Amino acid sequence: MKLLEEKIRACGKVYPGDVLKVDSFVNHQIDTSLAWEMAEEFHRLFADAGVTKVLTIEASGIAVACMTAYRFGVPMVFAKKSKTSNMSSDVYSTEVRSYTHNTTYNVTVAREYLKPDDNILLIDDFLARGEALRGLLDLSLQSGASVAGMGVIIEKAFQSGGDKLRAKGYRVEALARVGKMDPETGIEFVH
Amino acid sequence: MKLLEEKIRACGKVYPGDVLKVDSFVNHQIDTSLAWEMAEEFHRLFADAGVTKVLTIEASGIAVACMTAYRFGVPMVFAKKSKTSNMSSDVYSTEVRSYTHNTTYNVTVAREYLKPDDNILLIDDFLARGEALRGLLDLSLQSGASVAGMGVIIEKAFQSGGDKLRAKGYRVEALARVGKMDPETGIEFVH
Repeated sequence: MKLLEEKIRACGKVYPGDVLKVDSFVNHQIDTSLAWEMAEEFHRLFADAGVTKVLTIEASGIAVACMTAYRFGVPMVFAKKSKTSNMSSDVYSTEVRSYTHNTTYNVTVAREYLKPDDNILLIDDFLARGEALRGLLDLSLQSGASVAGMGVIIEKAFQSGGDKLRAKGYRVEALARVGKMDPETGIEFVH
Repeated sequence: MKLLEEKIRACGKVYPGDVLKVDSFVNHQIDTSLAWEMAEEFHRLFADAGVTKVLTIEASGIAVACMTAYRFGVPMVFAKKSKTSNMSSDVYSTEVRSYTHNTTYNVTVAREYLKPDDNILLIDDFLARGEALRGLLDLSLQSGASVAGMGVIIEKAFQSGGDKLRAKGYRVEALARVGKMDPETGIEFVH
């Protein structure tokens, strides 16, 4: 998505260790007109996929997931993170490793909000090693729902997460795919 | 807002101890068409207030805050919660007591996203004792910004938070004001 690539080039910050900060328009401050355009693009990409629900994980996926779900005319659900495990029988639960924060979260969704007849679009901000999407996929499959596809704002295409999920047969769409990035030379996108 | 009151009556759950659960359409699963209507209503209420930014707190305020900011054509910023204090000079920081979770959070916003020339609309899902809004207000004032007003989805009008903020001269608008609630007899709204 050209508009997003331009925004990343203009406002994204690259740090050593393959860190790309997009705090000024995605993760902390949100450019809401860009968010709307991204929701439109997810809708265009998955228009024929029969989406009945959008699932994301708190907190930085919520803004775009909400607009995307609105565009589809379906509810949005966000999975909740906690540091303690929740063994309640009312929730589906999985573990997600965060390499950014070097910790493992317990991630849960109330059972009543994911149903076997749901066809779920998973949305998240970043796809790198694929831990968060793998967690959302696990929660969806526990519920017996099917997964319509996965949409992410930015994929670090030089890491393995996206290709692993595609190899399992899932449709994974990224609005911007970073092929290479470097604090000196900047960002190269792949298409 | 009649549509919201009807939804609360139909889908809200009242538990002893003045607990109102709206997990099925506000806090965990989000009714995105209702969220859009709520954003429209916040826009209508604060249309003349000169809003330049919308500020909320993660996680359950983000969905409606994002749509509201989109409707105003301004960015949205969400303050981040953590259990450890962040003394970084890059952030504004305050403490917010959660009576629901019986804990105190450190809440931060990066300094670069709140500026003295901002006129901020604070948005949150619930207003009871007013702790979260007081925290967002504190962050806004630390930055030198002015506060255009405060919008909440549900106010527990029988608690003191809203009136305390109004007494300080702030414009506080709630889309539904609960005057009384009881697991047996249900919910009464005040206008």
